[in-house]
Amino acid sequence: MIVPAVIPCGTCPACQAAKPTICRRQFMPGNDGDGGFATHVLVPSQGLCPVPTTLPDGLTLAMLSVVTDAVTTPYEAVRRSGLGPEDVAVVVGAGGVGGFGVQIAASLGAAVVAIDVDPLKLELASKHGAKLVLDARSTDLKGLRAAVRSFIKDSARQGIGLKIFEMSGTPAGQTTAYGLLDHGAYLAVVGFTPQAIELRLSNLMAFDATARGNWGCPPDQYPAALKFVLEGKVALAPFVEKHPLEEAPAILEAVAKHALRRRAILQPNQGKRMQ
Amino acid sequence: MIVPAVIPCGTCPACQAAKPTICRRQFMPGNDGDGGFATHVLVPSQGLCPVPTTLPDGLTLAMLSVVTDAVTTPYEAVRRSGLGPEDVAVVVGAGGVGGFGVQIAASLGAAVVAIDVDPLKLELASKHGAKLVLDARSTDLKGLRAAVRSFIKDSARQGIGLKIFEMSGTPAGQTTAYGLLDHGAYLAVVGFTPQAIELRLSNLMAFDATARGNWGCPPDQYPAALKFVLEGKVALAPFVEKHPLEEAPAILEAVAKHALRRRAILQPNQGKRMQ
Repeated sequence: MIVPAVIPCGTCPACQAAKPTICRRQFMPGNDGDGGFATHVLVPSQGLCPVPTTLPDGLTLAMLSVVTDAVTTPYEAVRRSGLGPEDVAVVVGAGGVGGFGVQIAASLGAAVVAIDVDPLKLELASKHGAKLVLDARSTDLKGLRAAVRSFIKDSARQGIGLKIFEMSGTPAGQTTAYGLLDHGAYLAVVGFTPQAIELRLSNLMAFDATARGNWGCPPDQYPAALKFVLEGKVALAPFVEKHPLEEAPAILEAVAKHALRRRAILQPNQGKRMQ
Repeated sequence: MIVPAVIPCGTCPACQAAKPTICRRQFMPGNDGDGGFATHVLVPSQGLCPVPTTLPDGLTLAMLSVVTDAVTTPYEAVRRSGLGPEDVAVVVGAGGVGGFGVQIAASLGAAVVAIDVDPLKLELASKHGAKLVLDARSTDLKGLRAAVRSFIKDSARQGIGLKIFEMSGTPAGQTTAYGLLDHGAYLAVVGFTPQAIELRLSNLMAFDATARGNWGCPPDQYPAALKFVLEGKVALAPFVEKHPLEEAPAILEAVAKHALRRRAILQPNQGKRMQ
């Protein structure tokens, strides 16, 4: 089983209106109850996502833990955007979330641009679906805009409006993503940072554009997201790293500093029950 | 005839994809050709909105000029939001655009809150559909949030997610409107200001919220917007003021300073052809 990051109650008006991501009685393991830094954890029974007993080569149950949030949240953002084969997608931040975002967008047939400040992440993104990678350290916003515009032209896709996915969760990444808005563009706000940024809100009006966030992913979308992984459309192995549960404090600190290049998996009782 | 503020070409990929507001070959009288500060103006023939030869009492052809942009742009914003009788709408800025926004939202059955810094505009809004008016000069954002939350509760509407319409076109109004975002909220960015504001973009993610702008209104929506006026659901008279065309320079200056309380109508050859 995969336990969703956010488990809606299923009965409130928001859930009944098919908007479970804004359920106010949702249960978020680790926030609303004891979390996953343990060998066992108690969770509600609804919304769990079944996993086949036999997994494809190269996948383990422990690895599938990143489907929760790291795969499903960009999946839901891409789904809401209506991305398809005629679209150009720009993923800002190709790290522990964006790396999966790039793969999901590419496997839907979109022409994908990845932007990051880490050459290794960009290399990984280009191996896994990005047709163009741009280093935001060496290219300013004007240069990024020009490169994306030229890419759109060359890609000859018929989709109307650029689809931008902010997955860095940093003020710089958000400023870049917002700065890429163009006529009819759609900006998915996926990454989180508590910091504010300065922007011209009227650009949404001037560009007839949309910015939309998603708080995780409804549990009923988990099986579809998992399918991308099981069918090999989204590779996990190059984007994750495993650590024993004992290392949790140091790993959490590294995550907070954006120092990890891959999504960390903490394994309790390593070598005993999980592999 | 009413001449739309923005006339799309009708043949480009955006127009063919039913997204005429992002047509890159659109014609905007006054921007892309000589405008309306004259007795006659040459415009494309497509997209014009017919007007009945006999108008209801109290309406004149000159008054209907404000249907262009001032009525149609908030109409399109409301239409895109999917606003209905089970919703609560907050209109920030109840002036020359927002005054019509309040009326359109109210006539669709929504429970409407109007926020402004001008008591006279708020008084007018409360006479024309707003069930609650809030003065942003005497109430800070926290107070506005509390008042809106309490209004939502009392209104007992079943709609999920607050619908906010930024119609002031000021940095202060935008900051207020964005600050009212709540779980599942929808923010329509209708007013324009070139100034940037500081905001936490991640709130869109944390609240699972959407911010969407609209560049005017497609001409094919003009007849529906006009209908609100012809049926008396949107009153024009209290929200407009007429001036002879000769006063244009002074009027434009006053508009730029947000000094006018009503939408100005400039009349050429006053008393001769138009009334």
